[in-house]
Amino acid sequence: MKVKRKTIVGVMGPGDDATQSDMKTAYTLGKLIAENGWVLLNGGRNKGVMDAVSKGAKSAGGLTIGILPSDTGEIASEGVDVAILTGMGDARNTVNILTSDVVVVCGMNPGTASEVALAIKFNKPIILLQNDTITHTFFDKLSKGAVHTANSVADAIALIKSII
Amino acid sequence: MKVKRKTIVGVMGPGDDATQSDMKTAYTLGKLIAENGWVLLNGGRNKGVMDAVSKGAKSAGGLTIGILPSDTGEIASEGVDVAILTGMGDARNTVNILTSDVVVVCGMNPGTASEVALAIKFNKPIILLQNDTITHTFFDKLSKGAVHTANSVADAIALIKSII
Amino acid sequence: MKVKRKTIVGVMGPGDDATQSDMKTAYTLGKLIAENGWVLLNGGRNKGVMDAVSKGAKSAGGLTIGILPSDTGEIASEGVDVAILTGMGDARNTVNILTSDVVVVCGMNPGTASEVALAIKFNKPIILLQNDTITHTFFDKLSKGAVHTANSVADAIALIKSII
Amino acid sequence: MKVKRKTIVGVMGPGDDATQSDMKTAYTLGKLIAENGWVLLNGGRNKGVMDAVSKGAKSAGGLTIGILPSDTGEIASEGVDVAILTGMGDARNTVNILTSDVVVVCGMNPGTASEVALAIKFNKPIILLQNDTITHTFFDKLSKGAVHTANSVADAIALIKSII
Repeated sequence: MKVKRKTIVGVMGPGDDATQSDMKTAYTLGKLIAENGWVLLNGGRNKGVMDAVSKGAKSAGGLTIGILPSDTGEIASEGVDVAILTGMGDARNTVNILTSDVVVVCGMNPGTASEVALAIKFNKPIILLQNDTITHTFFDKLSKGAVHTANSVADAIALIKSII
Repeated sequence: MKVKRKTIVGVMGPGDDATQSDMKTAYTLGKLIAENGWVLLNGGRNKGVMDAVSKGAKSAGGLTIGILPSDTGEIASEGVDVAILTGMGDARNTVNILTSDVVVVCGMNPGTASEVALAIKFNKPIILLQNDTITHTFFDKLSKGAVHTANSVADAIALIKSII
Repeated sequence: MKVKRKTIVGVMGPGDDATQSDMKTAYTLGKLIAENGWVLLNGGRNKGVMDAVSKGAKSAGGLTIGILPSDTGEIASEGVDVAILTGMGDARNTVNILTSDVVVVCGMNPGTASEVALAIKFNKPIILLQNDTITHTFFDKLSKGAVHTANSVADAIALIKSII
Repeated sequence: MKVKRKTIVGVMGPGDDATQSDMKTAYTLGKLIAENGWVLLNGGRNKGVMDAVSKGAKSAGGLTIGILPSDTGEIASEGVDVAILTGMGDARNTVNILTSDVVVVCGMNPGTASEVALAIKFNKPIILLQNDTITHTFFDKLSKGAVHTANSVADAIALIKSII
């Protein structure tokens, strides 16, 4: 018996300081990830991009994994099926990235930036969505041109299909 | 929309130094965990109790989560659906325990003992299977009588049902 | 320029639930570790064995390293010179053990037991002090006879000298 | 007895891909950190900025702490006095930042960028040295203007004095 391990798409983005636009995009992204049969992974909290992308994936019946910084599930999104409780704060960001087959970035803040930087270090495919020119220029340079940019959720999904 | 988070049963036990009896028990245990609709969590490796319990759960169509010590999936069991790659060696043992709603222990070695000790510290329900008197006496004292003992897989399943 | 790295003696033991005897022994042990020129490492908190051993080492002018579970220094012992803030709760127990050249165990509780088990897994020299027969019997079996027992602080110091 | 905990200056920068200029600056920076009586903390490896800053600090008799990604000391710099072995790869980057009272950044690569981002998240004082306009612009925006820039090692030292 050989189980083909599920493809895991990680979606990273701001929690408390996500914009309405980030969250709307994240919800649609989550829905499409689920419709494509991929597992959704994210930081698991009940805020911002994490919450929206999980709920989007659940709206299409997907499997959602949340890697939480906390040691209890109280701050988990209602959209998370499997809450992995790390109790290690932002050290869990490395788990988010190592576990993802592809990393999609929706919005930006310091925690998210640490995840993009780790994804570059670990040679993970990265797709930047909803990001400005300064952010894109910096990560393009840091990754020596390896980061992808998507102008829409549809673009991001097409990029994921071309990568996995 | 409110997703009821899935119940996670963690099964801990030796990898390389598991006995044939440990592995046979683990396979049956995994199968019954899946048949009861619970998610199986374990250390994820392709050895011993981890491998057997994952394959048992897959034989009944369950969902299996492996929390791996490594930063790639090469050592993951073929029975693992979702391989969480931590890259943090045995520091991942805390994740195994924090994430489990109930911890079943099948066999014993130093890594497994560290997990039982953490489970006691975190007040997780613990069921000891396949363990000798010295082990049981020690953990009974360490937990002030809180650990459960099961004499068979059927006993363990009945105990899980009474706990969750 | 080649710096000879300092020898690090880790002392593990209960925090909140340490006995008066554990703490008295830990203070003397810390003092002698410092007098021998070794660096003291422990879990860094301002409670029980951690607090007492750090203060003992400082009373003799030693260098003390505390590996804290927290992400701030508020719960650090006043006897800690260098507070390593991990923010990862008990996942830091692996750091305590990996970093120690020798592990001395003074008293027992679940957190301490997890550290002894990890020390056995990592093949670290272990010296049990202040422990009862059940504890000793269990860890002797788990380590296949590799753990040392000391009946006094002087015995423990002599054992450390013979090991490093 | 109250020990005043030592001030810890963290220096972050590239390992294998550090420039000669980064390393020369790091050596001088380490020397001045030690001359000011501060403890030096860094990622501990025997490469690039980590190696140079540790050796600089040792040349002035300072205390050097290396937080290593590995579970043995083989890759530790000869300039490291106390090698904290985490065995958790880049998850140790959070420990580097949480433990530092001030973070000085000398050069840039993906691992270093993850540390700067975490430092912003944890509200740590950050001083960028040896960085280009794109890098500075990005982190200035990410931190809402909170990062400092130093044009020389002397400037960095003056900034540290004004901060602690």
